Amino acid sequence: MFLTRPFGRVLARKIYPKTVKPRSFYQNYSKMAFTSRVKPYSYTGRIRVKEVLNSQREDYLNKTITICGWTRTIRYGGKGAFSFLEINDGSCFKNLQVVIDKSINNFDQLKSEGVGTSFKITGTLVESPKKGQKYELSLRNNEDHSFKILGSSPQGEYPLAKKRHTLEYLRGIQHLRPRTNTIGAVTRIRNSICKATHDFFQDRGFLYIHTPIITSSDCEGAGELFHVKTQQEESENSENFFKDQVFLTVSGQLDVENYACSLSDVYTFGPTFRAENSHTKRHLSEFWMIEPELAFSDLNDCINCAEDYLKHNIEHVLVKNMEDLEFCNQWVKKGIIDDLNNILQQDFERIPYTDAISELASQSKNKFEVYPEWGIDLSTEHEKFLCEINQKPVIVYDYPKQIKPFYMRQNDDGKTVAAMDVLVPGVGELIGGSQREERYEVLKNNIEQNGISPEEYWWYLDLRKYGSVPHSGFGAGLERLVMTISGIDNIRDSIPFPRWPGNAKY
Amino acid sequence: MFLTRPFGRVLARKIYPKTVKPRSFYQNYSKMAFTSRVKPYSYTGRIRVKEVLNSQREDYLNKTITICGWTRTIRYGGKGAFSFLEINDGSCFKNLQVVIDKSINNFDQLKSEGVGTSFKITGTLVESPKKGQKYELSLRNNEDHSFKILGSSPQGEYPLAKKRHTLEYLRGIQHLRPRTNTIGAVTRIRNSICKATHDFFQDRGFLYIHTPIITSSDCEGAGELFHVKTQQEESENSENFFKDQVFLTVSGQLDVENYACSLSDVYTFGPTFRAENSHTKRHLSEFWMIEPELAFSDLNDCINCAEDYLKHNIEHVLVKNMEDLEFCNQWVKKGIIDDLNNILQQDFERIPYTDAISELASQSKNKFEVYPEWGIDLSTEHEKFLCEINQKPVIVYDYPKQIKPFYMRQNDDGKTVAAMDVLVPGVGELIGGSQREERYEVLKNNIEQNGISPEEYWWYLDLRKYGSVPHSGFGAGLERLVMTISGIDNIRDSIPFPRWPGNAKY
Repeated sequence: MFLTRPFGRVLARKIYPKTVKPRSFYQNYSKMAFTSRVKPYSYTGRIRVKEVLNSQREDYLNKTITICGWTRTIRYGGKGAFSFLEINDGSCFKNLQVVIDKSINNFDQLKSEGVGTSFKITGTLVESPKKGQKYELSLRNNEDHSFKILGSSPQGEYPLAKKRHTLEYLRGIQHLRPRTNTIGAVTRIRNSICKATHDFFQDRGFLYIHTPIITSSDCEGAGELFHVKTQQEESENSENFFKDQVFLTVSGQLDVENYACSLSDVYTFGPTFRAENSHTKRHLSEFWMIEPELAFSDLNDCINCAEDYLKHNIEHVLVKNMEDLEFCNQWVKKGIIDDLNNILQQDFERIPYTDAISELASQSKNKFEVYPEWGIDLSTEHEKFLCEINQKPVIVYDYPKQIKPFYMRQNDDGKTVAAMDVLVPGVGELIGGSQREERYEVLKNNIEQNGISPEEYWWYLDLRKYGSVPHSGFGAGLERLVMTISGIDNIRDSIPFPRWPGNAKY
Repeated sequence: MFLTRPFGRVLARKIYPKTVKPRSFYQNYSKMAFTSRVKPYSYTGRIRVKEVLNSQREDYLNKTITICGWTRTIRYGGKGAFSFLEINDGSCFKNLQVVIDKSINNFDQLKSEGVGTSFKITGTLVESPKKGQKYELSLRNNEDHSFKILGSSPQGEYPLAKKRHTLEYLRGIQHLRPRTNTIGAVTRIRNSICKATHDFFQDRGFLYIHTPIITSSDCEGAGELFHVKTQQEESENSENFFKDQVFLTVSGQLDVENYACSLSDVYTFGPTFRAENSHTKRHLSEFWMIEPELAFSDLNDCINCAEDYLKHNIEHVLVKNMEDLEFCNQWVKKGIIDDLNNILQQDFERIPYTDAISELASQSKNKFEVYPEWGIDLSTEHEKFLCEINQKPVIVYDYPKQIKPFYMRQNDDGKTVAAMDVLVPGVGELIGGSQREERYEVLKNNIEQNGISPEEYWWYLDLRKYGSVPHSGFGAGLERLVMTISGIDNIRDSIPFPRWPGNAKY
């Protein structure tokens, strides 16, 4: 592939120690992960199902413990002599089986309960005779044993009483959908990505910076903006609350650059907004972005960091959420675990835009709807093709100046800028970044050429006036990361309360 | 103090192992903290000043290394034979001293440089003869040694060229103020609190949930709301983009309860907004809140968690940021380190509201501007008094029903609700929380009594209809935590880009 790279410069790859392990490692590791754990803190006296299921024999076996949770099923055995409850508390994918003997004095209360009833249960943890589960909780002739129904869930009415529901149906009951297997798994994976993100940057000495949500500057002029006003401004047409007209931010990048140019390596991680009338499976009106900014760095450093960051997230989820992933692998997207392993085990392909265009143009004439001519923005079909022939993520860099925003650093060829996009098979563009223009005169010129008054960006220009430094950074959309790693197909299922045109419920 | 508690119920304290260490521990620990560190990742080849200063002899001593940063001072010695640069890269409070011999070929370039110039410098790390610093970077007759001026900082124009500036002046140059000692220290402390927050909840099995920023529900009807509209809605008075009228969230609590009632322990940490025309040192229009929600818990569990959380943050900053704190202790708020140690070393006082009122009422008649009568909300003077006589943080709980929002759980006395506030000496209310009303009929009744239609909260009521569980949670304002821990007096200096009425610059 791409043996000759006719035009573009070639960026060096930094060599890092490989951390890639075979798939079996993650499957086993996930089960071992709690071996050396610190005992989890509990403020309520209950022990989480996750901790019970992952416990060592010496922890809880043959001991009396209390758990809480919701029933996934209730059924009877031994001709009604005992009841089996599958209890889930959301701490992990799996349920804990509870076996209640009819000698327990309020046993008959179970009869009117079904899916979704909440319980507090105290019993003895015993080895389970059932295949595939190590432990179960047993309640029998023991004065310490008891269960309490905390809240019933009327079976005729409960919107989740039936077994399987479409994701579309669940979007109509966003307050209840985290009780399902799919949204539960995706939420735990999302949590892990957030945790992995903070760990990644904190371990590497980056400072977390909160950039503003309400802003009077519209960043790169990217997309349509939401306007923010007070009731008074609206009704009385009074003076602006903030003096200036204000919007919801579309990116924290320009703001976080102020901090990169003083505290060196920083990142922002917060909500961003687009007022576009998009109803696709890949767009939201409100989504979370991770935007690191590396001081004293060039595009190559930024690319190395982005590749590391993506792999770090995937590895973290493989280690922490294998049960959730196994469910996704079976029910959400077949083969997702292999896909993730493939991403981990390969160096991403790095291709200058100019070479990518030549490669695309060398295909048969009618291969693409849009002919791949130098100067166009790559479209989905092009990105897809580049990933497919490489069978791995592809990083395209050095894009034409005219299709990129003003703050990207101009390359020596005068035609391209030091921009990059990380394209992932089956997902498309996942991360975009660039080296920033650090030369005062060049930047000012770019701003003017974009038809913007330099005065609007006086503070951004100031960074280039006083102790300017080369720096670069990238942006990653959290929801696209969640989709990539969980395999979930619609972005509306990757965030707890999705906002799209026509919907801001809850 | 409060030997008799005439009315209120007494909540039990949970006993945790004490983690409190003497002040000297933190001072030494902070210096030792890097002994066992993993070598920091670098994408740029530079080594951060923090890592250099905290390195062991075997790491870098007598080795050639590259650092980058900005000059805090440049001066000359040996009758102009060498130059001393103090270089700061924001990774820590301290500078690294660089000694450049005039044999370095571009030595003369230094003459026109002053505060704020950015450098890339390669030299040999040597032991420093200067008292109080272990190492310095030496550039002399060695072909590997060099320095490069990345960006000058014209001394006549640079807004930070002079030594000391008021915080008010710095608020006018928010893009440059992180280059100062004070804002640098506060920013690093803020980062540490964010890191400590995520660690605290993740270690305890809480899942991080992003609640929506744009919302059609106005939570507790708390304060004034910002309205969100598109350009089109504004200019053409067209249909709402989201169908419903939407606002910026004032709290993620109600939304995160949906997740507590399915995945058990969760927290949200995101921006919240108030459109109030407040110009005080303690109010912002945009601020970040941490809101955990504990499933299967009561008020007492919630109080235990809140006390732990506050102490955890303080301990984390004492361990990680002692140099920043020592600066704050000298220049920002005298005695702040002792104050923090005092908070750590004490069990917080826990007082039912009713007892607090009796105590306040037992003071001389004109002690307070507002007479402390049962039923009033405690004002700043009351909170201050309660902290002062206890000489430690005070948690007041079980407030009168009529002064608290509808979702708080009604106590058996019929008059009070299971609410709590954590009051901190010199700061006031830092954390507020409650047990939530989990009984469907009681909640519905409360909503109606508050003049709200239950239909507006159909989803919130649903949680009480299907497998309802007792739960509780609290909210902590990040900026108030930063103020409490750094000692910074004005909330506008506790956040990178403060928003207040009349200001949304950058």
